[in-house]
Amino acid sequence: MQILTTAAGLQAHTESARQAGRRIGLVPTMGALHAGHLQLVQAARAECDEVIATIFVNPTQFNNAEDFRLYPRVPDADAVLLAPAGCTALFAPSVEEMYPQPTVLRFDFGDLERVMEGAHRPGHFNGVATVVSKLFHLARPHRAYFGQKDWQQVAVVRQLVADLSFDLEIVARPTIREADGLAMSSRNRRLDAPARAAAPLLYQVLTAAAEQVQQGLSPLQVQAQAEAALAAEPLLTPEYFAVADAQTLQPLAAYVPGRAVVLCLAAHLGGVRLIDNVVVER
Amino acid sequence: MQILTTAAGLQAHTESARQAGRRIGLVPTMGALHAGHLQLVQAARAECDEVIATIFVNPTQFNNAEDFRLYPRVPDADAVLLAPAGCTALFAPSVEEMYPQPTVLRFDFGDLERVMEGAHRPGHFNGVATVVSKLFHLARPHRAYFGQKDWQQVAVVRQLVADLSFDLEIVARPTIREADGLAMSSRNRRLDAPARAAAPLLYQVLTAAAEQVQQGLSPLQVQAQAEAALAAEPLLTPEYFAVADAQTLQPLAAYVPGRAVVLCLAAHLGGVRLIDNVVVER
Repeated sequence: MQILTTAAGLQAHTESARQAGRRIGLVPTMGALHAGHLQLVQAARAECDEVIATIFVNPTQFNNAEDFRLYPRVPDADAVLLAPAGCTALFAPSVEEMYPQPTVLRFDFGDLERVMEGAHRPGHFNGVATVVSKLFHLARPHRAYFGQKDWQQVAVVRQLVADLSFDLEIVARPTIREADGLAMSSRNRRLDAPARAAAPLLYQVLTAAAEQVQQGLSPLQVQAQAEAALAAEPLLTPEYFAVADAQTLQPLAAYVPGRAVVLCLAAHLGGVRLIDNVVVER
Repeated sequence: MQILTTAAGLQAHTESARQAGRRIGLVPTMGALHAGHLQLVQAARAECDEVIATIFVNPTQFNNAEDFRLYPRVPDADAVLLAPAGCTALFAPSVEEMYPQPTVLRFDFGDLERVMEGAHRPGHFNGVATVVSKLFHLARPHRAYFGQKDWQQVAVVRQLVADLSFDLEIVARPTIREADGLAMSSRNRRLDAPARAAAPLLYQVLTAAAEQVQQGLSPLQVQAQAEAALAAEPLLTPEYFAVADAQTLQPLAAYVPGRAVVLCLAAHLGGVRLIDNVVVER
């Protein structure tokens, strides 16, 4: 596995891979890798000749400086995991390498980012779209792999690709969970023992709500019961619980036959902000 | 010269050119070609193996539906001019081909678009950045050629390329003028005889103002005298005259030693909106 740290180095690498007719898979990450990331690498390995993983804790997508500072960084442990999973090149640039000058342009994704993460983390999806565009231009992937735990991020990146005619395919892979249901997340490392013990509640609330959606309970009732269940846990401060159209991400007043529903939540647990979601096909 | 009308067709063409190690030059135009466009094609021909010209009257960059409707369209005459100038492929897509779905994302370039064209044509540079991003992704150019008559557009496109790390070089070429100084523009075709006779005033005012800048007359005085000279022509309705930093495009209260100045204007002449500019090195 090659390790690249400069934009020019990555561009030279991917230009020659493209010229050789090799198919490139890109797995953009912020490091502190877990099984959720590794399945993305494995999927890319199965479908592409070249698998480029990137590790870059992107400052422009953090609306909270403390969250950025505390985001786990374990580059050596990450590098050890990537090669066995099938990664052929790791791109791990510095902030200065990715942002030699301050960025001027701003993205706005309209209604798609007026809800959930976009509403609670101002500027978050501008930062995501900026760094993803940069990585697409440096890595020239045929396919790029993202985890469905960041459901809204996948929707925004799909919109970016469609609206700017990026010539690549977005592949979204299901959330990987711990045995007790907690969605794998780099931020889980920051949970202390009591917070970790309480954390499975998030997925329990989501699965109970999904059953209620299947049973036809109204979106408002589902949301109210989920919020009550989250509020019952003293360690946990819920930020939002949304019953939304899985594609438009807009909150639902009523279900629309044939359209999937996504249940999304964010909550603070012992100083750590966690998100999770489940999709309900109807 | 190959003529391509589909995005997939252009992508296939440029993918194989890239694989063959051929350098690609892109000349994006809205058609109704004149010598200003053809010098871009010739410059691309001199520097690249493959020269792709695009002709697409992009609806998303028109803030005025009438202006879009009346924009000259002469595809057959354009095609005849391109091959002798060195164009190897012409991409002339339909609106539906470029915008299969309505675009959701919006670009904002901050101060760069709060002045001049951006201020007077709301949404203009969002449309420009969108279509230019699409064309870059379809044509995968090593170099893209733009005319300096659209000085602010060049600045916005350079910002786009820097901020999203597009792997290409922007080449800007000087404005080509008629013998009487009128900047070549596709819109000149729409001038009737009296308007055409009055039109050289625009460049006369710019050159007089440039001399005053060289002589050290203050930006405010230069602007006031230029506005007075434009107002003296009854056929002409000035929209703006700006004395600005050539790089940031922000209006100047005073000159900054070593920084170039750009003088930009827009005016309506017999129902046609024309722009022009000159740069003053100091």
